[in-house]
Amino acid sequence: MNTPERPHPAHLVAARGVVEPFRVMKMLDLVARRTQAGQDTIMLCAGQPATGAPKVVLDAAADALYASPLGYTEVVGDRALREAIAAWHSDTYGVTTSADHVIVTTGSSGGFVAAFTALLEVGDTVALPRPGYPAYRNILKALGAEVVDLVCGAETNFQPTAAMLDALPAEDKPTAVLITSPGNPTGTIIDPAELARIAAWCEDNGATLISDEDYHGMSFGPPTATAREFSDRAIVVGTLSKYFSMTGWRVGWLIVPEDLVETIENLQASVALCAPAISQVAGRAAFTDAARAELDGHIDDYRDTRAALLEELAALGLDNYAEPDGGLYLWVDVSSLTDDSETWARELVDEIGVAVAPGVDFDPVDGAGWVRLSLCGPAADAREAGRRLREHLGR
Amino acid sequence: MNTPERPHPAHLVAARGVVEPFRVMKMLDLVARRTQAGQDTIMLCAGQPATGAPKVVLDAAADALYASPLGYTEVVGDRALREAIAAWHSDTYGVTTSADHVIVTTGSSGGFVAAFTALLEVGDTVALPRPGYPAYRNILKALGAEVVDLVCGAETNFQPTAAMLDALPAEDKPTAVLITSPGNPTGTIIDPAELARIAAWCEDNGATLISDEDYHGMSFGPPTATAREFSDRAIVVGTLSKYFSMTGWRVGWLIVPEDLVETIENLQASVALCAPAISQVAGRAAFTDAARAELDGHIDDYRDTRAALLEELAALGLDNYAEPDGGLYLWVDVSSLTDDSETWARELVDEIGVAVAPGVDFDPVDGAGWVRLSLCGPAADAREAGRRLREHLGR
Repeated sequence: MNTPERPHPAHLVAARGVVEPFRVMKMLDLVARRTQAGQDTIMLCAGQPATGAPKVVLDAAADALYASPLGYTEVVGDRALREAIAAWHSDTYGVTTSADHVIVTTGSSGGFVAAFTALLEVGDTVALPRPGYPAYRNILKALGAEVVDLVCGAETNFQPTAAMLDALPAEDKPTAVLITSPGNPTGTIIDPAELARIAAWCEDNGATLISDEDYHGMSFGPPTATAREFSDRAIVVGTLSKYFSMTGWRVGWLIVPEDLVETIENLQASVALCAPAISQVAGRAAFTDAARAELDGHIDDYRDTRAALLEELAALGLDNYAEPDGGLYLWVDVSSLTDDSETWARELVDEIGVAVAPGVDFDPVDGAGWVRLSLCGPAADAREAGRRLREHLGR
Repeated sequence: MNTPERPHPAHLVAARGVVEPFRVMKMLDLVARRTQAGQDTIMLCAGQPATGAPKVVLDAAADALYASPLGYTEVVGDRALREAIAAWHSDTYGVTTSADHVIVTTGSSGGFVAAFTALLEVGDTVALPRPGYPAYRNILKALGAEVVDLVCGAETNFQPTAAMLDALPAEDKPTAVLITSPGNPTGTIIDPAELARIAAWCEDNGATLISDEDYHGMSFGPPTATAREFSDRAIVVGTLSKYFSMTGWRVGWLIVPEDLVETIENLQASVALCAPAISQVAGRAAFTDAARAELDGHIDDYRDTRAALLEELAALGLDNYAEPDGGLYLWVDVSSLTDDSETWARELVDEIGVAVAPGVDFDPVDGAGWVRLSLCGPAADAREAGRRLREHLGR
């Protein structure tokens, strides 16, 4: 047997003391325990739709349950699902995406682990937006990579730009650049022209662009583009969790250049074996017209909740926030109310039954003055949360 | 925010060229493609039952589909499932296992990744049986740990012993010792008295015992013991995939000491979020009497296939193999027929439509003269495979 040598000596990391808790998930657990104990909570902290999978997906799952043993699928995913994803990606963005380049992963979580491990070598640096999704940073820390923050505020619509990458000092030159549009926690969308500049910067500078497109399909107006429109070296990460409203089903995907397919397949065979079979078989139906019609209705609900939350923020005198172009969240500066939004968030649950996501998850430097609100619940809940908060604050 | 320092400088590994292909999964993919093309194959390579989930699990899944949105569960798993696993583990082995120490993972694959990453630090060594399940070695290599082989042959029933651990040179002293009983690929069972000695050796030598109990419930006679009977520092890995016949559902678990729970929870929150919701909700039913009655029937089928395969091996003149005490496999020396069982296995598929698992997956040093056969198919298939092979070899 030929065992290729590792390109660099490599080490295993102790996660103990390295990986931060994911506070939003702890908050979800706390709310779940309150629910079990009969205590109601207004859920403004969820990173997931309150809705379930589209009815056609549920019906497909019900049929699939008794139709086959639901054993392992191919490691790279059920072929029909890969083809459905490729067709959807091609049609949505006017690109040509081959099913051969689609790898089904266990949620986009599995995709990030696979992509990071496949791409990066010892000493490599990844540029991340701050604020951003905490798992990027946590996985990279657990694996031992270096993170360079792209600090994003109102002046760039809370998103990174090619100019920020240009301004990085030489020692911070990234091997990979990760972007998320619509953003988490910001909901802001990178303009396609800026995305083109970021993609060009990555190609010109030998960096791999990893485009987290988990919140695609969820825009309140502005256009979203796929990174693959501008670079066929870019890695796209996608999921059935958000627009497709199937979080607990644990199906995501990577769209990768040809030369990464086998590496990721080999890695996934040992690390994950395959994504859940029932979710993959039923997940094909998520790309049908019937599913899309149901899912597009959810976006109208998020738009209503967004409007309600913006009104409540105004009534509370909170006027510094990222105005969401899409996605599921509203990122709000609450530094006029607290300098420790993690403690504050726990108090709000205990005292007025309102759950918000503490900002430090998303921005370990400045996040203690911020919270992330979710657009996933009904507008009426958002208004009631605002009322309770005004009363709590004596406003 | 307090970010604890990493205990050691730590590095990310390039998987490119590091992670071996998992040849059994490639063989499964090849068989799947043959099936799609209308070509029949006798499947002696599967690492999974040919049967589906128990009927009560399917019925529970069908009910659950429409009962709730099936969003994220708690990171450590659905509480009711954790309680079912703890109760089953306690009842089966006469130990006291708390649900608080059970962490539901995305298959046992997710459990191995979590356990290795949580336990090990830079420079640590893990002792593994050879032959053994290839993902252990592949994950550890991808993460950069050192592996020490415990070479297991007929003289120790193809299983490691405390004496082997005692005989390790000082520089190979392991941080963790991993055992699998019933074995993969060997099907042999470590005698409880020997397991007690291994557990004592680990406690005496400051090594963590990781006991892969994925094949528990599948014995053809000899008793299986849990490592937690002999050491409450041991980590037990379990799964719904094998005895419970639910491979594609992707539910496994870890039973860990108290001081590892939070580390693994934090890690899992970023790396996986949670195991599939529908699988967890339905999986509870796998521990009912109705499910167990159905599942115990499968063991009778494996026993029949085992007997048929042993007869066919005798007819082929193949007399060097591990005689399976349990589990799903038969590990056979075919060095009288080939010195490259990977190429040979591909030829057998192409020429006589019989799929076996090449041994190099399980033993990178000596495996080229061995194959792993699966007990999962019908005995009639095993006999037909033997007939084709005899004809192919002119015997």
